[in-house]
Amino acid sequence: MTEIPDTTPAELETALQRAAEAAEAFGSQPPATRARQIRAVADALDAASGELVPLAMTESNLSEGRLTGELKRTTFQLRLFAGVLDDGGYLQATVDSADPEFPLGAKPDLRRVLVPVGPVLVFAASNFPFAFSVAGGDTASALAAGCPVVLKAHPGHPRLSVRTGEIITAALAESGAPDGVFHVVLGLETGAVALRDPRVKAAAFTGSVPAGRALFDIANSRPTPIPFFGELGSLNPVFATPGAIRARGAEIAKGYVTSYSGNAGQLCTKPGLLFLPADHGLDEVLAEESRAVAAHKMLNERLHQGYCNRRAAVTEVPGVRVLAEGSVDDGAVPTLLTTDVATLLANREALLEEVFGPLSIVVTYASEDEARRAAEAFEGNLTATLHAEDDDAEFAASLVNRLRDRAGRLLFNGWPTGVAVSPAMHHGGPYPATTDARFTSVGTAAIDRFLRPVTYQNVPQNLLPEPLRDENPWGIPQTRHESK
Amino acid sequence: MTEIPDTTPAELETALQRAAEAAEAFGSQPPATRARQIRAVADALDAASGELVPLAMTESNLSEGRLTGELKRTTFQLRLFAGVLDDGGYLQATVDSADPEFPLGAKPDLRRVLVPVGPVLVFAASNFPFAFSVAGGDTASALAAGCPVVLKAHPGHPRLSVRTGEIITAALAESGAPDGVFHVVLGLETGAVALRDPRVKAAAFTGSVPAGRALFDIANSRPTPIPFFGELGSLNPVFATPGAIRARGAEIAKGYVTSYSGNAGQLCTKPGLLFLPADHGLDEVLAEESRAVAAHKMLNERLHQGYCNRRAAVTEVPGVRVLAEGSVDDGAVPTLLTTDVATLLANREALLEEVFGPLSIVVTYASEDEARRAAEAFEGNLTATLHAEDDDAEFAASLVNRLRDRAGRLLFNGWPTGVAVSPAMHHGGPYPATTDARFTSVGTAAIDRFLRPVTYQNVPQNLLPEPLRDENPWGIPQTRHESK
Repeated sequence: MTEIPDTTPAELETALQRAAEAAEAFGSQPPATRARQIRAVADALDAASGELVPLAMTESNLSEGRLTGELKRTTFQLRLFAGVLDDGGYLQATVDSADPEFPLGAKPDLRRVLVPVGPVLVFAASNFPFAFSVAGGDTASALAAGCPVVLKAHPGHPRLSVRTGEIITAALAESGAPDGVFHVVLGLETGAVALRDPRVKAAAFTGSVPAGRALFDIANSRPTPIPFFGELGSLNPVFATPGAIRARGAEIAKGYVTSYSGNAGQLCTKPGLLFLPADHGLDEVLAEESRAVAAHKMLNERLHQGYCNRRAAVTEVPGVRVLAEGSVDDGAVPTLLTTDVATLLANREALLEEVFGPLSIVVTYASEDEARRAAEAFEGNLTATLHAEDDDAEFAASLVNRLRDRAGRLLFNGWPTGVAVSPAMHHGGPYPATTDARFTSVGTAAIDRFLRPVTYQNVPQNLLPEPLRDENPWGIPQTRHESK
Repeated sequence: MTEIPDTTPAELETALQRAAEAAEAFGSQPPATRARQIRAVADALDAASGELVPLAMTESNLSEGRLTGELKRTTFQLRLFAGVLDDGGYLQATVDSADPEFPLGAKPDLRRVLVPVGPVLVFAASNFPFAFSVAGGDTASALAAGCPVVLKAHPGHPRLSVRTGEIITAALAESGAPDGVFHVVLGLETGAVALRDPRVKAAAFTGSVPAGRALFDIANSRPTPIPFFGELGSLNPVFATPGAIRARGAEIAKGYVTSYSGNAGQLCTKPGLLFLPADHGLDEVLAEESRAVAAHKMLNERLHQGYCNRRAAVTEVPGVRVLAEGSVDDGAVPTLLTTDVATLLANREALLEEVFGPLSIVVTYASEDEARRAAEAFEGNLTATLHAEDDDAEFAASLVNRLRDRAGRLLFNGWPTGVAVSPAMHHGGPYPATTDARFTSVGTAAIDRFLRPVTYQNVPQNLLPEPLRDENPWGIPQTRHESK
């Protein structure tokens, strides 16, 4: 297998310069034209599935089924953003006509539209070699917005990244996109250098809290700071009420084990803690289900080592008991621990930090008040989940209120893993779930991250950008505020 | 006159704690209820005009007419946000119903709504004692969003700030708002301490680049960083084409002098540079108009001293010539300088930095290319203006494209001072105009800064927040994406 070398400084310079030079031409195309280019990328990736999936398998330890599904999701997502462009509403074109009678004095003709911010640097994730990587949601939304992309490949799958990049670049060229719109670069230092470059106007990242925070700090300490959209860490707590346990305790136990152990627990929405009433009586079924989960190799050796270390640290906390664990072979062993709320609150640093891998903790609460105190102990999360029944409505409502302040998505009687790509999805949340809780990285609203508003005042029709002209040549939705 | 002391640490602690405790009750009220509370604030401020305007005059050196108009604008703005609440569209309530046939597998019921971020720290500005101060746009939009406000008063007008705060607090109480929603605090250190406090969830600031950047850095270096919306500095360049000068040179000269010298040049949208063709022939009328402007005391002695220093530094740049200046008495003397593009580009540090006060520079360009190079030299601005006629359409278009990348608002044949409060207004721009080019601090879209999305997945009707329920008890707009 050929080693893939890091991008050289000269190559990075070329990529950044070409991206900067492509920005105006790429961003000013009609959205429908860019939609065709993005669909061409999706088609080319689908056509290359037979080559890409095996390549991804060799670099990620993930199964063919999982990767085939993930590639399908990735191209679905690209086409979803093409649909966003065809619609055109994402431009938020607003026309507020002149009003000589305005109470504060004559008001000019004001028209606002969103414009692309310029080249975007995307840091690919390890755990989704397709859907959060080279052709993933960050790339799809940045390209849709009209921004060239410099993609910093994850070191876990360099060959797949380079090959995916070649396919994207070729598809963009064949479909008539301007030159220089997409670049894959490799190397830790390459990413940091690119992030400091003034030609880069925004960045997106999916990964760990320490890596993401370091990059966030670089982005903000630039002479000209740029928006940095990092998805970092999330514990995704799940609370089950006594009523829910009475109604379907075993089902909840099984669903939970499937959710925390699937994909070797390498999902950003893995439930890290399950809160159960102290008398839940589910230890046996939880242990049995967990023991039945096969060991699964983690994405790479570094992550495996990290998992072993964190697992040891968490297991050693006094008051934490092992409910089920397998033997340590070369896979990451599913591990289910249990403790109570008092122990959790006394050991926040050790227990309220994400463990990346198939480990989760069942935490028992002795009273509703204790459950509420536990809910208040969390920092920001991508998700929080509640299992409840009608007879617990008041208790459930008190938890919903507390969890709402600490999560970007609240689920009821379900599991946080599996993120639907939809207009109402929010895959984000207060820090450290993300570095900017106002934006999502999944779903059509992700395009908003790479756009900024510009208002045109009294600008004549021929100098207005297409989406703001009265004749509306792109046929996009225009919101009109006519003078009264 | 009584000295107003800084807020003590104990008083600040009380303010922060009360704001945090008020957040849930204030934010979960129906928007129409909060609208009534905000209108009560506007009414109370209008009723106190006879007391507030004279107080503002003694602390700002601004005229009665200007301050009366500014207070009117301030209460108009509060009522505008009340209207935003009555409409309810700002919640962006989106209902995406379940779809068992979704191509990527059964899709759950997903509903997204914006929720208030929590207590907001607002740093008031010096130059608008009403409109960008205690009851200004940041306060209005934060309260409208449902966020309690801790307002750090500007040291330039402490008595006005305290009195305005008392009126706001009383009006909120009388109109039934929860206790603890609004607090005025004083002192430089008070602001920095509050910005580091974990109970503060977002901050807004209007002021200078150094002060704003220092606060931005604090907000981002917190263990849990928060959004910081700073409006810092802007040069607001104006370009006039040869055709515009031929058609109405004298009119442009007069309008420019009025715009840069009004309010002693203490506006964030003051035009700092006017680019004219080398043969413009307007030196005399520009000088005459500038000499006719009366000296005007600046807001305070610190700003006056800063103006004198910057004025000296700019005037001393070789190649910069004085077109008109008055004698230095106790006011800030309107000063018009002139130079050419070559000198400007060779002295960017001295000449491309905002001078707060009534100074502006006429820069001559020898060719269209030179004008375009000048346009490319700018960093971010709140505004950029173009004066052009039909016969210069191509040149004008080439400037519009370049200015678009460097400004939040583009004006045609007008002047940047005077910012209409409207749904299509964008008062923002790339750094250093603001620290977040995606958001505006003027106009109804300013409310977006203090909201974040939360998605509810399969949550039963009784546990959903009101704006997402099928029965829609608040009667707000819901965008529905039904399954096909």
